[in-house]
Amino acid sequence: MAGKTTSVLVVGSVALDTVSTPLGCREGVLGGSATYFSIACGFFAPVRLVAVVGEDFPGSALELLRGRKVDLEGLEVRPGKTFRWGGCYENDLNQAKTEFTDLNVFEDFHPKIPTAYRDSRFIFLANIDPVLQLEVLEQVQEPLLIAGDTMNLWIELKRDQLFEVIRRLGVLIINDAEARQLSGEKGLPRAARFLLENGVRMVVIKKGEHGAVLYTTEEVFALPALPIEKVVDPTGAGDSFAGGFMGFLARSEDFSIAGLRQAVVYGSVMASFAVEDFSLNRLTRLTDDDIEGRYRQFKDLTRF
Amino acid sequence: MAGKTTSVLVVGSVALDTVSTPLGCREGVLGGSATYFSIACGFFAPVRLVAVVGEDFPGSALELLRGRKVDLEGLEVRPGKTFRWGGCYENDLNQAKTEFTDLNVFEDFHPKIPTAYRDSRFIFLANIDPVLQLEVLEQVQEPLLIAGDTMNLWIELKRDQLFEVIRRLGVLIINDAEARQLSGEKGLPRAARFLLENGVRMVVIKKGEHGAVLYTTEEVFALPALPIEKVVDPTGAGDSFAGGFMGFLARSEDFSIAGLRQAVVYGSVMASFAVEDFSLNRLTRLTDDDIEGRYRQFKDLTRF
Repeated sequence: MAGKTTSVLVVGSVALDTVSTPLGCREGVLGGSATYFSIACGFFAPVRLVAVVGEDFPGSALELLRGRKVDLEGLEVRPGKTFRWGGCYENDLNQAKTEFTDLNVFEDFHPKIPTAYRDSRFIFLANIDPVLQLEVLEQVQEPLLIAGDTMNLWIELKRDQLFEVIRRLGVLIINDAEARQLSGEKGLPRAARFLLENGVRMVVIKKGEHGAVLYTTEEVFALPALPIEKVVDPTGAGDSFAGGFMGFLARSEDFSIAGLRQAVVYGSVMASFAVEDFSLNRLTRLTDDDIEGRYRQFKDLTRF
Repeated sequence: MAGKTTSVLVVGSVALDTVSTPLGCREGVLGGSATYFSIACGFFAPVRLVAVVGEDFPGSALELLRGRKVDLEGLEVRPGKTFRWGGCYENDLNQAKTEFTDLNVFEDFHPKIPTAYRDSRFIFLANIDPVLQLEVLEQVQEPLLIAGDTMNLWIELKRDQLFEVIRRLGVLIINDAEARQLSGEKGLPRAARFLLENGVRMVVIKKGEHGAVLYTTEEVFALPALPIEKVVDPTGAGDSFAGGFMGFLARSEDFSIAGLRQAVVYGSVMASFAVEDFSLNRLTRLTDDDIEGRYRQFKDLTRF
């Protein structure tokens, strides 16, 4: 029962990615914001996944998710093709250049939250249309914590609906470019203040190779990134961060300052693994010992 | 006697700056790499300044330096005008656009190290022509620690001489762009490794709003920057960092891992103050309590 109520509900995309980075290319590999989140979160807490895939979605990927504490009752399989995204990273590994976006079955996606998921105490609204994020919130009971992500497209096209979502979030988890675009402020400390003044309780700004910063109205916690010499593929790092962050909070239910700081570290741990290989290859090979070992690496990196 | 031998010798520029930032402009104010270094370092250890100024250099600036534990025996006053630099910061506060550089008396500068300075146990070679940096090293006895800085111009024009300097340094203190340019590597962890493999014992990479990272062959220490909402003028932040870093090491003579990490924090403390006002205005108003208070702020910012 305890296990059930601390489940984390995630709503977002499950995709097949074609990715090219300075270290290689992969075609049609497992990706999507909700996928990275689910695998990363599953190390800490049971996950309930709401998303849609097409009939071409590989059974092996379903097996992979099932084997990782991810409940798939909310994963619709619809006639047609799975959402496909193609992107390329050149010198700036913080910024993917989108080469194509084939929405396919994702085009008409409206999240349907199974009855069994409605009492989820932790919810992550991955980067989807804020109108769909609001549809999710209409279907669930009041959770302990709602976290959300977004992207430049929605900031530009659906600003009002996005701020409606933001006002209902406990934590907004975004990258530095999104924080600047949302706030109109160049400096991140001011961008964070703007967001806190506009209704969000906490903001985590992810800065890629420069780490992550947690802002609340009372305090700031900054964590550098682990120096990684060989970043193979940055895709999914942000969603893996969110997975580690929310998973740790769901497991601990510790919302103290100390608990939130640890959640940021576990988020960074999962992101640091995600970039070490293509797709979810590194995340799916992890053990709990790997995760704890890297947590200690962050301790060593930052202590003084 | 102990005070004398732990003095820090700095060789670099003393200048009059004309600076424009989004928060205002100042004309002909005190600046220069060796000036920022001296004032920041002076809070921790006595400083010996070797530089050159013209007859127009204000007596009030000399008084200011003298009042801050900075020995001026090595400061030449020569006929002509003081080095003047004009720069402008627009949206990117990490990058000054140089508007003019009037070398004036600095054009024929060859550092003459006074006999009394030759036993200095700590030496900082601020950003000057590497040929001049080598001239300094020819005039001094073997010190405990030599640190050095450089800039894009020397990396481009005097690469061989610069690497000759680098091989003699204990610590190379540079910014992220310089680390990339020196190494030809985009990623900072690889850039640092390149530098360690090319003869420097330690590298500190300063990343402005993203903090600083210390690399040795054995370990890495990363410190985020303090989130500062109102960066008034970034000029001199890097030299203030070097001043705090070297000053703390000169005071403690603690080259253990823990001591080096603390030095990075004190460097960051001094840099965080430097940017809060134009010229040296904030640094010269500081008290030891301000410095210790900010050190604790860094502790609060980063602990988990």
